[in-house]
Amino acid sequence: MKKGVIRPGHVQLRVLDMNEALNHYRDLLGLIEVETDSQGRVYLKGWTEVDKFSVVLREADAPGMDFMGFKVMSNAVLDQLQQALVEYGCQVEEIPAGELNGCGRRVRFEAPTGHLFELYAEKENTGKWGVSQVNPEAWPQDLKGMKAKRFDHCLLYGPNIEGTCALFQEVLGFDLAEQVVDPDGKKAGAFITASMKAHDVAFIECPDKGKFHHASFFLETWEEVLRAADLISMTNTSLDIGPTRHGLTHGKTIYFFDPSGNRTEVFCGGDYHYPDHEPVTWTTEQLGKAIFYHDRQLNERFLTALT
Amino acid sequence: MKKGVIRPGHVQLRVLDMNEALNHYRDLLGLIEVETDSQGRVYLKGWTEVDKFSVVLREADAPGMDFMGFKVMSNAVLDQLQQALVEYGCQVEEIPAGELNGCGRRVRFEAPTGHLFELYAEKENTGKWGVSQVNPEAWPQDLKGMKAKRFDHCLLYGPNIEGTCALFQEVLGFDLAEQVVDPDGKKAGAFITASMKAHDVAFIECPDKGKFHHASFFLETWEEVLRAADLISMTNTSLDIGPTRHGLTHGKTIYFFDPSGNRTEVFCGGDYHYPDHEPVTWTTEQLGKAIFYHDRQLNERFLTALT
Amino acid sequence: MKKGVIRPGHVQLRVLDMNEALNHYRDLLGLIEVETDSQGRVYLKGWTEVDKFSVVLREADAPGMDFMGFKVMSNAVLDQLQQALVEYGCQVEEIPAGELNGCGRRVRFEAPTGHLFELYAEKENTGKWGVSQVNPEAWPQDLKGMKAKRFDHCLLYGPNIEGTCALFQEVLGFDLAEQVVDPDGKKAGAFITASMKAHDVAFIECPDKGKFHHASFFLETWEEVLRAADLISMTNTSLDIGPTRHGLTHGKTIYFFDPSGNRTEVFCGGDYHYPDHEPVTWTTEQLGKAIFYHDRQLNERFLTALT
Amino acid sequence: MKKGVIRPGHVQLRVLDMNEALNHYRDLLGLIEVETDSQGRVYLKGWTEVDKFSVVLREADAPGMDFMGFKVMSNAVLDQLQQALVEYGCQVEEIPAGELNGCGRRVRFEAPTGHLFELYAEKENTGKWGVSQVNPEAWPQDLKGMKAKRFDHCLLYGPNIEGTCALFQEVLGFDLAEQVVDPDGKKAGAFITASMKAHDVAFIECPDKGKFHHASFFLETWEEVLRAADLISMTNTSLDIGPTRHGLTHGKTIYFFDPSGNRTEVFCGGDYHYPDHEPVTWTTEQLGKAIFYHDRQLNERFLTALT
Repeated sequence: MKKGVIRPGHVQLRVLDMNEALNHYRDLLGLIEVETDSQGRVYLKGWTEVDKFSVVLREADAPGMDFMGFKVMSNAVLDQLQQALVEYGCQVEEIPAGELNGCGRRVRFEAPTGHLFELYAEKENTGKWGVSQVNPEAWPQDLKGMKAKRFDHCLLYGPNIEGTCALFQEVLGFDLAEQVVDPDGKKAGAFITASMKAHDVAFIECPDKGKFHHASFFLETWEEVLRAADLISMTNTSLDIGPTRHGLTHGKTIYFFDPSGNRTEVFCGGDYHYPDHEPVTWTTEQLGKAIFYHDRQLNERFLTALT
Repeated sequence: MKKGVIRPGHVQLRVLDMNEALNHYRDLLGLIEVETDSQGRVYLKGWTEVDKFSVVLREADAPGMDFMGFKVMSNAVLDQLQQALVEYGCQVEEIPAGELNGCGRRVRFEAPTGHLFELYAEKENTGKWGVSQVNPEAWPQDLKGMKAKRFDHCLLYGPNIEGTCALFQEVLGFDLAEQVVDPDGKKAGAFITASMKAHDVAFIECPDKGKFHHASFFLETWEEVLRAADLISMTNTSLDIGPTRHGLTHGKTIYFFDPSGNRTEVFCGGDYHYPDHEPVTWTTEQLGKAIFYHDRQLNERFLTALT
Repeated sequence: MKKGVIRPGHVQLRVLDMNEALNHYRDLLGLIEVETDSQGRVYLKGWTEVDKFSVVLREADAPGMDFMGFKVMSNAVLDQLQQALVEYGCQVEEIPAGELNGCGRRVRFEAPTGHLFELYAEKENTGKWGVSQVNPEAWPQDLKGMKAKRFDHCLLYGPNIEGTCALFQEVLGFDLAEQVVDPDGKKAGAFITASMKAHDVAFIECPDKGKFHHASFFLETWEEVLRAADLISMTNTSLDIGPTRHGLTHGKTIYFFDPSGNRTEVFCGGDYHYPDHEPVTWTTEQLGKAIFYHDRQLNERFLTALT
Repeated sequence: MKKGVIRPGHVQLRVLDMNEALNHYRDLLGLIEVETDSQGRVYLKGWTEVDKFSVVLREADAPGMDFMGFKVMSNAVLDQLQQALVEYGCQVEEIPAGELNGCGRRVRFEAPTGHLFELYAEKENTGKWGVSQVNPEAWPQDLKGMKAKRFDHCLLYGPNIEGTCALFQEVLGFDLAEQVVDPDGKKAGAFITASMKAHDVAFIECPDKGKFHHASFFLETWEEVLRAADLISMTNTSLDIGPTRHGLTHGKTIYFFDPSGNRTEVFCGGDYHYPDHEPVTWTTEQLGKAIFYHDRQLNERFLTALT
């Protein structure tokens, strides 16, 4: 949090059919459905999140990610970072407060990878779901499905991740926690963070702009990853891969698809990062192990199924 | 234990190179090396097993299983079962006491699948390894690798599993715990047991006689299956598939290969069976899910890599 | 299963208030409520059990256990064991089929400890709850509370456990799996089994006859024991001790009380037993560690709170 | 990290006998022994820590904590915070670089609770122990005992925790993550953090100055907490309480004592904190549940055994 960016605060995803999407994000993943706005967008959150929402689903003709937002410490920080983005040469767009219910003014910019990101300082604080702020129980008893705890990060594919990392590091104060480097020393992948987490957002180099690989949600244990796998099977949900471990971050994970073809990850564990840590490096000749620590080989689908 | 058969007591496996095999079975799998006999065979066991050994490795030109042995309650039971096998029409061979160090007289027969099985009543009781019989600690502190607890079962491929099951059930008192049945009602797979375990030995129908699919070893937890997966990767061991869950028995599992190409499984959990239970049935159109509950599709290697 | 006894099949418990008891056994423990009989007794079972019921609750003025029943292989076995009990000098009472809904003829006897036990051969098979017999899922999605898998065993206090063990071993074919022995070599505790489980019933020596210490239910994992502990706290249920591990059997456990003061255990893991195993022995000077492996000291309540 | 404080970087503990202490911190807890300095102090660290050391043991006549140190982002930050401490009215002492091997200049101050704290910007980076910075494996294979991952936090007892929190929050940029509040609204306990962790240091109000309750070390899973409990028993180590869960932070934990009487905690899990989170509040009438979520009552020892 070198420059006041706190965490990934929301992601807006395009889905082909809202009811089917709710079966996935609410009933299977276990996010809490918060409300539907006047545009028909549905807001959800993980039960441990204190702000009003973190996932926004928008019905559209094609799947993918509209934008990802980061919360910052204050409106003063928001002003500073907006100024810094402009000075860095970014096109910046202001979205007025209230365009997302309960969310303050958003400052939107496009990264070199072609993805839209936003910063915002204010969102309605509704507290953790199902537990009290005073003498809180360990967890709410009426969670559904995988009981996902929070929206954690996105993995995005696009060109010029080198430039995108520079932007996030220099302007927004992110750290490079982990990277994949090819024999020429060029970044093929970058995992960056504004906090102790191994990644708040990650990028893989790819010629096509603005591609979405997955949104990831945090579980607490490897047994919950197994439970997630069982539920994927019981609900005839399309599995990508897992349960397994990543080499990068060493998180324990499973990937599957929402009914629109957007990939979802649930995971637990993984290494921690502090801002004085050197980045962990994986080399492209070990890319298979970097991605899937046990299989040590990539499946084609993981590299090419993007929305 | 309807007719006095207690448990799978040993398996003799052929390996191409003994030192490499010991790296696998002793250092990676974590079996206890017991001794080497005058033929150069090496004896091992899981630390919770009370008898002297359960795995015998024999250096040979081709991998595979020489035989699998079951312990019975007494010499009287052994005599009875020998008689019953002969009456059932089996060719029976007697192996004298001491042919395997510390093991009494063995009664050997060939099943219709082409595999050799043995019954025996006596084996030197050396107690659990590393813990006392009086006030025992929960586990020994100096186990290696995956810390496998016991040899659990084998999965074998061969023709006429219907006839083989009949032999095990009628003559030896095994139960059919689970089965895979094709649309004509014919058994494609059979999991049979003499105890509460979901399988003490399992068979898959296959035209080739005497094929070995895997020997399986028991772990205690899903976290130990993850640890096994990590060790497989760290030691560059050839992975087959996992961590995952089976549909059949619902055990949690990982498969990998020894340096000779013999498949090894470590697993935990799984359903229990009592002799008054109806067999659980899986249908061949759901064979993928029956074998790999999460992936719901078979990999070719699982069906064809046999020794 | 040397003489045809399969498993603990049921326990009938006295409770002071049926509604409160159902909050405990159905909603917290997660047993499936099956039906209420004409006497007002309520029948329940763990979801993995194939027979109609395993727990019977009877409203009464004082808590405790009415009787515990074991299922045997067949009516022929039941006749044999009845005869053997009589020859051993036991008073035997026959309870006609149907006295418990769906249960066949029961043969009841009193053990020297003063507890009533029953044998029966037939109980309506209703299959596992919530999963199919064909292509079964790993678990049902709509279980409550601790999701207990099965009734596992009882621990009972009374005089002359030596004589009681002799009866169970000699007449009914049980094995002594574990024992606590005092410096004079006298049994202070005995854990006996008819199967691979470390205990199907256990006894602690105590001058008062027919005392009930706890009924125990099986969970699958240490994480489920934690979840049970959390639920105990969330529901303001009276905790005895745990989560912890036993020295005896090395099971992982937690104890708590039903609203009538009957103790309940949920546990996972634990050592396995085969009939050729020597009994594991704990000495009374290590009784604290034998009971609570981590604390290594007994709490007074554990020894004296009996019903 | 509002003002550049990164994390708890070290704690110096007094032990009565160094060899016995090494049995505890190195062999049982599993810290890596790094080196012994010219004063005879022994340096250790958790294997995931990138800096040279985090625990310093000093042989002395009485147990307890000498000081706890926090790493800050840079020497510029160190200068700023030193200035801010002085302006806040703190007595500040400078410890020259090298007084601890491999550690730069330290700025020491006494909190109102009577504890000595230090800030420093530089410590020799030796990388994680046993894994590479390039293509790192998931964990080193040759860890000992509990395999503690990192020094995590201390819990300290002393007077005026209100004033101490004010100092840490206003001058050093810590957040109040959780608190215990008495009926008059006075803080009885405060858990504060400079990061996403639920606490980097915690305080309990107590009339005696400078008391040490425990140093805590991070494990990854509840199963590792069980393993720790088993090892405590196997090594006849004095147990305080556990395995259990805290209400405060909801971490899963076990407490035990080093041979000098200093309390050690190993734990896993626990809630996360972001700087925009409201503090979680526990009320003193629920203090038992706040500390021990399952037992819901304090043991006297937990409150009074301090060093």
